[in-house]
Amino acid sequence: MVDNLVATLRSHSPLIHCITNYVTVGDVANVLLACGASPVMADDAQEASEMASVAAGLCLNIGTLNSRTIGSMLLAGKAAAQRGIPILLDPVGVGATPFRTRTAMRLLKELPVAVVRGNLSEIKAIAGVGSFVKGVDAGALDVVTEENLSAMIEFCRRVARSLSCTVAVSGAIDLISDGQRTFIVRNGHPIMPRVTGTGCMLSGMTTAFLAARPEDVTEAATAAYAVMGLAGEIAHQALAPNQGTGTFRSNLIDAISLMDDATLQAGMKVELR
Amino acid sequence: MVDNLVATLRSHSPLIHCITNYVTVGDVANVLLACGASPVMADDAQEASEMASVAAGLCLNIGTLNSRTIGSMLLAGKAAAQRGIPILLDPVGVGATPFRTRTAMRLLKELPVAVVRGNLSEIKAIAGVGSFVKGVDAGALDVVTEENLSAMIEFCRRVARSLSCTVAVSGAIDLISDGQRTFIVRNGHPIMPRVTGTGCMLSGMTTAFLAARPEDVTEAATAAYAVMGLAGEIAHQALAPNQGTGTFRSNLIDAISLMDDATLQAGMKVELR
Amino acid sequence: MVDNLVATLRSHSPLIHCITNYVTVGDVANVLLACGASPVMADDAQEASEMASVAAGLCLNIGTLNSRTIGSMLLAGKAAAQRGIPILLDPVGVGATPFRTRTAMRLLKELPVAVVRGNLSEIKAIAGVGSFVKGVDAGALDVVTEENLSAMIEFCRRVARSLSCTVAVSGAIDLISDGQRTFIVRNGHPIMPRVTGTGCMLSGMTTAFLAARPEDVTEAATAAYAVMGLAGEIAHQALAPNQGTGTFRSNLIDAISLMDDATLQAGMKVELR
Repeated sequence: MVDNLVATLRSHSPLIHCITNYVTVGDVANVLLACGASPVMADDAQEASEMASVAAGLCLNIGTLNSRTIGSMLLAGKAAAQRGIPILLDPVGVGATPFRTRTAMRLLKELPVAVVRGNLSEIKAIAGVGSFVKGVDAGALDVVTEENLSAMIEFCRRVARSLSCTVAVSGAIDLISDGQRTFIVRNGHPIMPRVTGTGCMLSGMTTAFLAARPEDVTEAATAAYAVMGLAGEIAHQALAPNQGTGTFRSNLIDAISLMDDATLQAGMKVELR
Repeated sequence: MVDNLVATLRSHSPLIHCITNYVTVGDVANVLLACGASPVMADDAQEASEMASVAAGLCLNIGTLNSRTIGSMLLAGKAAAQRGIPILLDPVGVGATPFRTRTAMRLLKELPVAVVRGNLSEIKAIAGVGSFVKGVDAGALDVVTEENLSAMIEFCRRVARSLSCTVAVSGAIDLISDGQRTFIVRNGHPIMPRVTGTGCMLSGMTTAFLAARPEDVTEAATAAYAVMGLAGEIAHQALAPNQGTGTFRSNLIDAISLMDDATLQAGMKVELR
Repeated sequence: MVDNLVATLRSHSPLIHCITNYVTVGDVANVLLACGASPVMADDAQEASEMASVAAGLCLNIGTLNSRTIGSMLLAGKAAAQRGIPILLDPVGVGATPFRTRTAMRLLKELPVAVVRGNLSEIKAIAGVGSFVKGVDAGALDVVTEENLSAMIEFCRRVARSLSCTVAVSGAIDLISDGQRTFIVRNGHPIMPRVTGTGCMLSGMTTAFLAARPEDVTEAATAAYAVMGLAGEIAHQALAPNQGTGTFRSNLIDAISLMDDATLQAGMKVELR
C-alpha cells in the first residue's frame, strides 16, 4: 500500500461530483471535506454532464433513487467515462425493490464503473445471488466472518471478474477485490452501522481516494476503508460513558479530519490475499 | 404502560419506511437507529408500494411536501393498509398553505392512519378550528398549559373520535388521545423546539414504537413521547455552560441511543385521564 | 452599526422562507433557529407563493438547483416582492455550469434581490468577470487579501451599483457593499470552509438579519457576517486537540445560539470604508 495517500489527497483536493441520496448527503459532503477533497452535489440533467466533466471522481448512490435523477446519473457517468475519471457505484438497498435492482444493473451495464461498494446483501443482490436484504441494511445472515472468510473472498473475486471492476464489501470484516488481489480490512467498530450513512460517507471518501490514485483503484479503495474503520475506532474511544451515537457521529468526522498517513500506517489492519 | 417496550423495540428492530422532508431526514434516520429500529427512506412512486410492503411501520411527513411524492405517499399508505401495518401522519405546517391542508386531509381520508402527530396549531388546522400557525412552528397562542388542560384534553378526544384515530399533540405538555383514554406527558425541555426536527424525529420514533406494539398504538405513542421528552431532559443536563443547541442535538441522539426501560420507567412523567 | 440587532431578531423571531439545497438545509434551519428566527422550507410551485407571502424574508440558494424548483423560486420571489420583504440570493456554484449561470442571472433580472451573497468566484461569475470557480468552492486565486483589498472593494462597489443591490462576499476577509458604503469584516477562522454549508448557513442567517432590519440591509448583512465569523472563532477556541471539523460544526451552532449583542460588540472586527 502506498504510504502517503492521505497527504496526496489533501494536497490535490480533488473535486468529487456526487449524485447521492438526501438522507446522508450533508455527512457525505462533510466527510469529503474532512479527508481533503472538495464535494459538489449536482443532480439535474441540465448540468450533470458538465459538472462531471470538471470533477476528478464521480460517486453515484441510489439511496433515495428517483425517476428524475436516473437520467442525470447516466449523463454524469458518460461524461466521466469520456474523461476517464473513476466512477464509484453505491447500490444502496439493491434487491429491496425491483426499481433499485433494475436501475443498479442498468448503471453497471452502461457505465464503466471502477468500484461497486456496498454491504454483503447488496453485493449478493448485484451478483444475482439470494440475499437477506432488509431495507437498506444488510440482512442478519449476510455477514463476513473469520469462519466463512475464504468462501466470501472467492465470492468477491468471482463478482469482480464478472463485472470487470473492483468490488468492495463493508461489514465487520471488509473485503476489496479486483478479481485477482483481495484486501481484507479488519478496522472498525460495531457502533458504526448504528449511525446512518457510514456506508454513504465511505462511498464518498472512497471516490476521493480513487481520484487521488486512479492508477490502482483497488489499493485506493482499501486505503479509504482503512481510514474509515480506523476513524471509527478512534471516534468510539473518545466517547464518554454518557455519550452515544450522536456524539459518535461528530467524533467520526473529527477523526477523519485529523487523519494523517502516520496514524493510518500505525493503525490500519490490512491483509492481502 | 408496558414496562419492556424499549427492549422489545431493540430486539425486533422493525423496518420503518419514511416518506419525509429533506430538512430533517438524516436526524430522523439517526433517531430511528438510536431507538433500535431500521430506517428506510424511499419516495419514488416506482417503489413506494413495494418498500412499504416489507416494512413494519410507515411514517408520512409533509414538511417539504411536493407534487412528486403525494402519489408515493398514497401508494405506500395503501400497501401499508393492505398489510395492516401502522401508519403515522405528521402534517407539518398544515394550515400554513391550502396545498398542505388539502393534502393532509386527503391522506387522512384515503388512508387508515393510526396516529396523527403534530403541534397544537397543526392539530387545530386538521380539526378545522382556527389556529395561529406560523410556518411550521406552533403559534404563540397554541399552547397546552395546566390552565387549559381539561379543555385541551376534551379537544383532543373530540378530534380523535372524529378522525377515528389516535391524536398526539406535542408541546410543553404532550397529549395523546384515542378518544377514550388520554395520556398526558410532562417530560421535555424548552430548548427542544430550538433544534429543527425534534417533531419529525418524534414522528419517526413514534412509528417505530407503533411497530413494536401495534396492538395498542396509543400506549405505544405515549411511550415514544416519554422517551423523547426524557431524552431531551438528559441531553440538556449534559450541556456545559458554553454549549448550546448544536451540542444539544448530538446529546439528544446520545440519550435516545442509551435509553433503556429502567431509565424510562424512572424518569417518565405520564398521567392517564 | 445598530447595537441591539441580535436582541431585536430574537424578540421578533421572523419567519424565513428558504428554497435551498438539500445538502445543508438542516444546518440552515438550525442556524436560523439558533439566531432566533423561525425557518420554513417549502419549494413546491403549489405553495411557494403563499409561503413567501406570510414570511418576513426569502432566501434563495441554488446549491442543488433543479428544473422543478426554478419556477418555485420565481413565484416565491414575486410574492416577496409584492409584499416588500427582503430577498437574498446565494448563487452557489454559479459559473461552474451554464445552467447555474443562466438561472442566477434570470433570478437577478426578474426579482428585486436585496442582497447577493457568495464567495469571490461566485460574485465574479455574476459580474461576468473570469473566475477560478471549482465546483461550489472559491478558486484558489479568488481571495480577498490585505494586498488587493482596495481593488476588491472597488470591484464590489461596481457590482453592487450595476446590480442595484447589496453585494456580500465571504472569505478570509468579508466585504459587504451597497455601491456607496463598503463594510469590511475580519472575523472568522480558516477551519470554517472545511465544514460544508457555512456559506449556506450564513445566507440563511443574513436573511433573518435583513428581516430584523429591512431599512438598512447593508448594515444588517454586515452584522450577520460578524456574528458568523465571531461564532467561528468561539467555536474553534472551544475545540480540544483531538477534535476536528465534526465537533466544530456543533460548536458553531452552539456559539450562534448563545450569541448576544454584548458578545458581538466586543468581538466584531468591522471597518467601514
